[in-house]
Amino acid sequence: MRFMTERIARDGRALDEQVLLVDSFLNHQIDMELMKQCGSAFAQHFKGKGITRVMTVESSGIAPAAMTALEMGLPLVVFKKKTSRITNGTVYQTVVQSFTKNVRYELTVAKRFLPEGEKILFIDDFLAMGEAAIGAGRIIREAGSEIAGIGIVIEKTFQPGRKRLEAEGYDVFSLARVQSMSADGIAFVEP
Amino acid sequence: MRFMTERIARDGRALDEQVLLVDSFLNHQIDMELMKQCGSAFAQHFKGKGITRVMTVESSGIAPAAMTALEMGLPLVVFKKKTSRITNGTVYQTVVQSFTKNVRYELTVAKRFLPEGEKILFIDDFLAMGEAAIGAGRIIREAGSEIAGIGIVIEKTFQPGRKRLEAEGYDVFSLARVQSMSADGIAFVEP
Repeated sequence: MRFMTERIARDGRALDEQVLLVDSFLNHQIDMELMKQCGSAFAQHFKGKGITRVMTVESSGIAPAAMTALEMGLPLVVFKKKTSRITNGTVYQTVVQSFTKNVRYELTVAKRFLPEGEKILFIDDFLAMGEAAIGAGRIIREAGSEIAGIGIVIEKTFQPGRKRLEAEGYDVFSLARVQSMSADGIAFVEP
Repeated sequence: MRFMTERIARDGRALDEQVLLVDSFLNHQIDMELMKQCGSAFAQHFKGKGITRVMTVESSGIAPAAMTALEMGLPLVVFKKKTSRITNGTVYQTVVQSFTKNVRYELTVAKRFLPEGEKILFIDDFLAMGEAAIGAGRIIREAGSEIAGIGIVIEKTFQPGRKRLEAEGYDVFSLARVQSMSADGIAFVEP
């Protein structure tokens, strides 16, 4: 989607060859009109796939996923990054490694918000190694549901996330695909 | 606001006299149409106050704050609950105690997303002790800006949050005010 590529080109900043800073519009300061455009683009791409529920991971995935759920008229369910004392005992959990942040965390969702037979659209802000989506997929299969699509705001094509997700059979759609980053700038692949 | 009181009466559950479970529509599974109503109600209440920026705390505040920012056509800035390695050194930080969850965390925001002279609308899902809003207020004052309003989705009137925030001079507006909770049900005060 041109709108996201253009925004990254204008306001994104390559901190190094791995880390793309988009905190002025996506994950710290958030441009909600842009998030609305993301929601419309995801809804448009995945319409007709029989999606019944939108899911994401706290907290940077929430804004784009929220606008997608609103646009599609579907419930949004947010995976928590740790066990809640309240939901404890009635949850699905799996360990996920974040290579970008070099931490491991437990992806957690209350079983009652992930019933059997659902077709999930999983939305996230970044796709790098694909760990979050793969972890979400494990939980969703365990629940007897399936990932019917994965919507990514920014994909780093120089990392193996897409390859890993496609190997699992997932339909991955990214709004912007970053091919490389350096002090000279950010290069994109057409989505 | 009747819509929020009615939704809590229907789908909320008092876990004990302190903890109100609203995870089927507000903070785990999220009803985005309801969040849109919250955004409209906050925008309506605070219009004419010269608000320039909406702020909230990750992650449960994001959905209602996002809809408020969208409705008001303003940027949304999300306080992080810990130091990011990326923003480190260029941030405002303050320690906040969450009594509900019995943890302390650092409320963090990059200085460039909180310039001087801003009039902030601070949105949060719950008001209990008021610690998050008081912490946010400290940071916002330090930045040379001010809190021009506080919008709360659910206030627990049996805890001192409102009294503490009003003592700081803040204008607090809650969509639902819970007076007490027990196995018998949830009692409300009219907002």
